[in-house]
Amino acid sequence: MSASIQSSGGVITCRAAVAWGPGQPLVLEEVEVAPPKSMEIRVKVVCTSLCRSDVTQWQSQAQPDLFPRIFGHEASGIVEGIGDGVTEFEIGDHVLTVFIGECGRCTHCRSSKSNMCQNLGLERRGLMHSDQMTRFRVKGRPAYHYCAVSSFSEYIVVHSGCAVKINPTVRMDRACLLSCGVAAGIGAAWNVADISKESTIVIFGLGTVGLSVAQAAKIRGASRIIGVDINPEKFEKGKTFGVTEYINPDECREPVQQVIKKLTDGGADFSFECIGDTDIVSTALQSCCDGWGVTVTLGVPKTKPEVSTHYAFLLTGRTLKGSLFGGWKPKSDLPSLVDKYSNGEIKLDELVTHEIPFERINDAFDLMREGSCLRCVIHMQKEL
Amino acid sequence: MSASIQSSGGVITCRAAVAWGPGQPLVLEEVEVAPPKSMEIRVKVVCTSLCRSDVTQWQSQAQPDLFPRIFGHEASGIVEGIGDGVTEFEIGDHVLTVFIGECGRCTHCRSSKSNMCQNLGLERRGLMHSDQMTRFRVKGRPAYHYCAVSSFSEYIVVHSGCAVKINPTVRMDRACLLSCGVAAGIGAAWNVADISKESTIVIFGLGTVGLSVAQAAKIRGASRIIGVDINPEKFEKGKTFGVTEYINPDECREPVQQVIKKLTDGGADFSFECIGDTDIVSTALQSCCDGWGVTVTLGVPKTKPEVSTHYAFLLTGRTLKGSLFGGWKPKSDLPSLVDKYSNGEIKLDELVTHEIPFERINDAFDLMREGSCLRCVIHMQKEL
Repeated sequence: MSASIQSSGGVITCRAAVAWGPGQPLVLEEVEVAPPKSMEIRVKVVCTSLCRSDVTQWQSQAQPDLFPRIFGHEASGIVEGIGDGVTEFEIGDHVLTVFIGECGRCTHCRSSKSNMCQNLGLERRGLMHSDQMTRFRVKGRPAYHYCAVSSFSEYIVVHSGCAVKINPTVRMDRACLLSCGVAAGIGAAWNVADISKESTIVIFGLGTVGLSVAQAAKIRGASRIIGVDINPEKFEKGKTFGVTEYINPDECREPVQQVIKKLTDGGADFSFECIGDTDIVSTALQSCCDGWGVTVTLGVPKTKPEVSTHYAFLLTGRTLKGSLFGGWKPKSDLPSLVDKYSNGEIKLDELVTHEIPFERINDAFDLMREGSCLRCVIHMQKEL
Repeated sequence: MSASIQSSGGVITCRAAVAWGPGQPLVLEEVEVAPPKSMEIRVKVVCTSLCRSDVTQWQSQAQPDLFPRIFGHEASGIVEGIGDGVTEFEIGDHVLTVFIGECGRCTHCRSSKSNMCQNLGLERRGLMHSDQMTRFRVKGRPAYHYCAVSSFSEYIVVHSGCAVKINPTVRMDRACLLSCGVAAGIGAAWNVADISKESTIVIFGLGTVGLSVAQAAKIRGASRIIGVDINPEKFEKGKTFGVTEYINPDECREPVQQVIKKLTDGGADFSFECIGDTDIVSTALQSCCDGWGVTVTLGVPKTKPEVSTHYAFLLTGRTLKGSLFGGWKPKSDLPSLVDKYSNGEIKLDELVTHEIPFERINDAFDLMREGSCLRCVIHMQKEL
């Protein structure tokens, strides 16, 4: 199949990696991408990176009706078309897509305390927010979206509130990482936990999100950053991001929270659950100290959705918080994060362990499931 | 039996209400109270009020070996004896007892962020912190303490770090309420939730603790204070403390959190679990809004100790916090709370629904279990 683009009457025909059923390998198909409707833009995707939640949702049997479906939400691209009413973008603008938008008008967008936009929140039905329809067709039928982004397509339509204009001089194959996981980790440390200088941090799970928490904690001046992961190779990578100590729970003779309490004389100041295992939330809470310990849960659980813990761990003065996208308001806050990468203040390059052309997108899924990659950047156009 | 006091060689013989087994009616017995050891004081109890946790612990089958036992922890009294090394108290000082102390030296006492004293924390073994012994004997055998206070005795020995000197002009039969429940509620609102002006509050359980949250919220300028309780009589009392709206979950046609979400256009800013029912914690969390909702759990559960909730209620930006004694450092903070009562800034009188002489202490237990009282003040010496 050709990768060339045919534009016809506003509809673009291009390639997309289509999932025909839960857990089924993606198939590169020719799809039709509708022109952008009012307040929407059409974006030529340049790079998309694979996030764990793409894999989790693709494997899930929970919504078998939402297939064929086009996954992907961590992406960078260039504005190709502009719908009615859109004034903030021009064709050619470099953008990041975001899985939760910012309408700028709702109570939450107007509050400084929330990033939970009431109009462009997490979309779970595989449709566009505005009209509950899809913008894709494949083999004559609609293809469902994912998070109203669906970046595993050469062209996509997104609401203008779900795209963020960024500095065009910044590498698109790196900036895409800030579209979800890295920003989530940094924001959890800075916005949600609000890590203080000299504090002690424990991070459960040294994947992309956990390492992003680590680098953010280091920037804030944390004195100890303890990484917990069953894969010791992660520690080597972790050092680059500021991890100072490593615990492999498989090698502990007692529960890992006890090990941490001993190491830290009573518990850490902050702990982060970055695995997506709800059972670890209580472990993370117990790894914090009485009185002021704060646990932030960021992971999207792969299985059990219930978080449980003994009430005493709360009553003794701990705080359990969650966040989506690290508390960032995407449009307001992402451009400055991109600039921080550009200025060398935050690291992204070291998180890119693999880069592949679009044709090999299934390899990215395999790598993620094997646990052998942090971020795999998928180049939509470039021959690698 | 006479209520007269015989002091002999430092040991005082007096009356105490002794529990001989879990859930068994208290028996007024003659007990021996040892003189205070180093850093301890002996206190003549003037008034003690019954707190729900006395009843919960008395009914519990979890520690059958800790009997005979003397319960009680919410109390006011007068210093009668002073152990070696104690410099901050003089005989005749008016004091409140506290179930968590403040040594003033440990990491937590030195931190502004914690009231979880590492030396005088919640004592669960029925003994004194310093030497793991008891100071009571009844019928020739040791009687166990409760929270290292045991105020259901005419005289008690407490660590000097577990007593707080208060203004001697303040009524002892009211100040005792600040020794636990009322302070816990006020502190949960002010210190833990840090309620802001114009905010919307939901309180689950309009008992003494819940009403104390309400009055504290009102003082902070909360715009709406919604009380949830299955007993509609509590609403009348609640109005006195600032409750503006009332929901009876038994009369709701949909889950109470849905009712609250509709009433508040998406959820309250703050919710408080003041019942001691861990199942209500998730309801309280769901009653808060996305983005910045904060739930504080204060209740000590009567049965199931596990707190469970769906991870999504956290991931959408909610915070779950717990606190013991409302985050107050007892010695540092209680005197000013007592003064606030004295100045008319906080209400206590309206919480005292019953007053009885010591001889009728079992009536207080009955009243608490029937749910027909807020606070029952037990007068140790006075004929009523």
